Amino acid sequence: MMTSINKKIDDLLKQHPDLKNITPFIDANATTPYLKDESKYTRKLCDSIEQAIHKCELRDGMTISFHHAFREGDKVINKVVETISKLGIKNLTLASSSLLSCNSALIPHIESGVITKIYTSGLRGKLADAISHGLMDNPVHIHSHGGRVKLIQSGEINIDIAFLAVSTADEQGNANGVSGKSQCGALGYAMVDAQFAKKVVLLTEDIVGYPNHPASIRQDQVDYIVKVDEVGDPTKISVGAARITSNPRELMIARYAADVIEYSGYFKDGFSIQTGSGASSTAATRFLENRMRAKNITASFALGGITASIVDLHEKGLVKRLLDTQSFDGTAGQSLGKNKDHIEVSTNVYANPASKGASVDELDIVILSALEIDLDYNVNVLTGSDGVMRGASGGHCDTAAGANLTIIVAPLIRSRIPTVIKKVTTVVTPGESVDVLVTDHGIAVNPARPEIAERLKAANLPVMSIEELYQRAVSLTGEPKPIEFNDKIVGVVHFRDGSIIDVVRQVKD
Amino acid sequence: MMTSINKKIDDLLKQHPDLKNITPFIDANATTPYLKDESKYTRKLCDSIEQAIHKCELRDGMTISFHHAFREGDKVINKVVETISKLGIKNLTLASSSLLSCNSALIPHIESGVITKIYTSGLRGKLADAISHGLMDNPVHIHSHGGRVKLIQSGEINIDIAFLAVSTADEQGNANGVSGKSQCGALGYAMVDAQFAKKVVLLTEDIVGYPNHPASIRQDQVDYIVKVDEVGDPTKISVGAARITSNPRELMIARYAADVIEYSGYFKDGFSIQTGSGASSTAATRFLENRMRAKNITASFALGGITASIVDLHEKGLVKRLLDTQSFDGTAGQSLGKNKDHIEVSTNVYANPASKGASVDELDIVILSALEIDLDYNVNVLTGSDGVMRGASGGHCDTAAGANLTIIVAPLIRSRIPTVIKKVTTVVTPGESVDVLVTDHGIAVNPARPEIAERLKAANLPVMSIEELYQRAVSLTGEPKPIEFNDKIVGVVHFRDGSIIDVVRQVKD
Repeated sequence: MMTSINKKIDDLLKQHPDLKNITPFIDANATTPYLKDESKYTRKLCDSIEQAIHKCELRDGMTISFHHAFREGDKVINKVVETISKLGIKNLTLASSSLLSCNSALIPHIESGVITKIYTSGLRGKLADAISHGLMDNPVHIHSHGGRVKLIQSGEINIDIAFLAVSTADEQGNANGVSGKSQCGALGYAMVDAQFAKKVVLLTEDIVGYPNHPASIRQDQVDYIVKVDEVGDPTKISVGAARITSNPRELMIARYAADVIEYSGYFKDGFSIQTGSGASSTAATRFLENRMRAKNITASFALGGITASIVDLHEKGLVKRLLDTQSFDGTAGQSLGKNKDHIEVSTNVYANPASKGASVDELDIVILSALEIDLDYNVNVLTGSDGVMRGASGGHCDTAAGANLTIIVAPLIRSRIPTVIKKVTTVVTPGESVDVLVTDHGIAVNPARPEIAERLKAANLPVMSIEELYQRAVSLTGEPKPIEFNDKIVGVVHFRDGSIIDVVRQVKD
Repeated sequence: MMTSINKKIDDLLKQHPDLKNITPFIDANATTPYLKDESKYTRKLCDSIEQAIHKCELRDGMTISFHHAFREGDKVINKVVETISKLGIKNLTLASSSLLSCNSALIPHIESGVITKIYTSGLRGKLADAISHGLMDNPVHIHSHGGRVKLIQSGEINIDIAFLAVSTADEQGNANGVSGKSQCGALGYAMVDAQFAKKVVLLTEDIVGYPNHPASIRQDQVDYIVKVDEVGDPTKISVGAARITSNPRELMIARYAADVIEYSGYFKDGFSIQTGSGASSTAATRFLENRMRAKNITASFALGGITASIVDLHEKGLVKRLLDTQSFDGTAGQSLGKNKDHIEVSTNVYANPASKGASVDELDIVILSALEIDLDYNVNVLTGSDGVMRGASGGHCDTAAGANLTIIVAPLIRSRIPTVIKKVTTVVTPGESVDVLVTDHGIAVNPARPEIAERLKAANLPVMSIEELYQRAVSLTGEPKPIEFNDKIVGVVHFRDGSIIDVVRQVKD
């Protein structure tokens, strides 16, 4: 046949010289040699993380990525970086969707130059403390969940190899977080890395029969698969930011937040809501149920960051669909696996302002937390009152920009330090995106939204100006002492569109 | 805040001159102006196809694409091309996943130079006849379903605007083919175009509430949405190639094919199968049921091209999962909408040899049709015995390459013309990918697979050499007259890897 096809191609090129780039057929498996034998079933499987790293040809200076769906229970990030360190590879950019207290084991690998640049949504614990005190030469880049995808799309984050923890995968790489032993639920971050990274390595506890379903990550996105003992501890997903509260003050704030929603003008049949991961924010969900029943209102969808409280409303028929980019607890993860209208979405769909359309754009109401909020309604969710990084940008500025009603919930005072202050230490979400502040001492409405203030006053809610809240805080605690910083910039805060909205400086010891 | 951030960025650039490409924050909606008002809900909606074409800035020389999931019932391809024609745009490349008899309305738009180049899996009816007789200056490019994605990936097909028919979409573009009035089922082709096209326009009969689910096409892939009166007639999906047979000869071949499967050595618990769209191929599925029950065997998955017969096996618990890139009848479409293990896959996952992994690679058994098969087992599914194009490459060479057992089913003689001949008119699938030929006069096994021949003989199946089948055909019909062709090449046949495996010449009148 070879001779015959070559003659035909000669004729073709005589008639159509523009087809000069065509190639003649050689044999059926010229580009798929693995189809000739059993390697078609095994070609992606690696014996070890080390072998996967070798096959991906990881080299000095490259960018590696991870997801943080297991939050404080993650068992993959530290382990892969440790393996890389043993291989003597240096000068890597670490682009994890976020980093948490469990990642303090990275500190020696930063000190030794394995990791020299970091992109992350947030930092907590000893790692955050060390970086805030000047551990790195390069500033850490803080991004929102949507902004991360924009940075990947634009090439500022150029992922060479994504190492993605999944609970199950088949031998071709169809993978999810809702089957197997250690389930993290939604893989919204990982879906983005699987889409954009040059090479994708799955780490999984369980290689199941083909075809694995659902395939949050699809076989056409996966290069290699490594079976490991454990990818994460699901019981630690809801530790920290995603905890459930029984604190009376937090519950009081949550009730106020539900009141604000009820009287805001946005509490209508078919409304949509996101409730973030903070304790008051999560708790507010629970106070919505009676209000929804009383007014015969159901929500069209809830977005996020899905929690057990939201799943409860969904299973009671009060929220039609759940769009889940990250499951904040085990209940949410299990619901994603069984409830057909609990839908997994990538962070590109969730919140990327440069995608063709983000779910946050459709959002009516979002409830968000704050470490600090200032008189211009700018919000800090990154640095503590000591100037040390201890939080995350998350979906904060993404949802605040998209929602019609952005509610910040926070205690007026934490550990004798005011939350409402003149100027936030670090701006993560600009005040123009914030509509209402709910504290345990009263509610303030952004002057840009006078109609909301009117509605809340008409409902006899304790509306006051943010200046009044500030004065009340200061009257109780005294004016907070300014934090002392060095000049060195240790963190750069990206807004969701990639621009720089603030910097974080090294704290003085 | 502007002044403040500019000062901070000055400091940052002094410390880190390498960050020179950063931009300072301007305002929350600098890159998302639509979030400021109601246009966030309506910005993708167009009043007409014409408006969508304008917004996408379609210009002379561009490439437009379509899917053919509605097969003979498609109402979108002709209508969009007619609209483009009225706008005076010329010299377009038409990259529809396939074209059928219903597309004869394209002929005048080819004559007038609106369409000057075509990529398609196949051609039927008057359009095929006209192109076979020299309608176009450029040869039509025929590709397989997997090969199409490879050509898109490599940039040979560079889709500027995809016009995708869907039964429902929400205002952001989450869309599927399993809800609403005119359902086509799986959108496997459209999913690829949505992924790769520069601009994506959805045409839908029904704009539903946000968020539409399932989202076969996702909102982050969609630019514009047009509501139209009708996108397709689902009753015409199973017309033609995908029909159900009651022809005794076709049923006899189907029974033989089931026998071949049973004794091939591949009929084991957990096996996988694809049965294509031909009548005998589809019918063979029905004969497998008793054999599976008798031997207590279930299949892990069926792939395709899903038909009502396969759905029946699935619903009876005999096939665990269905991987569906194209629903071949209404029953399959409905099953996709309701059965949780009936899974939609893009043609990139289905069959692209240049993806990171194709489902056809995992396939044990495929049953495929043929218009002609020759003594080297090369198969023609494109040109008829008169040399005129009347078929489609489809998934033929993709599945044949991937499967462990490729069975061709065909009557030995059609309308007094042999199917088994010395040399096929057009090679679509190379003989090296074909293992067994099943006809109504006997079964031939590729000499490259002696172990299969032995097994079938041991089961007393009528195994003979393909030369014997050829002699029997010729003894009944006489030696077929060679087809007379002109020199002009009217078609180029791509193998799945993009290479050219054959050409089609203009038939003499």
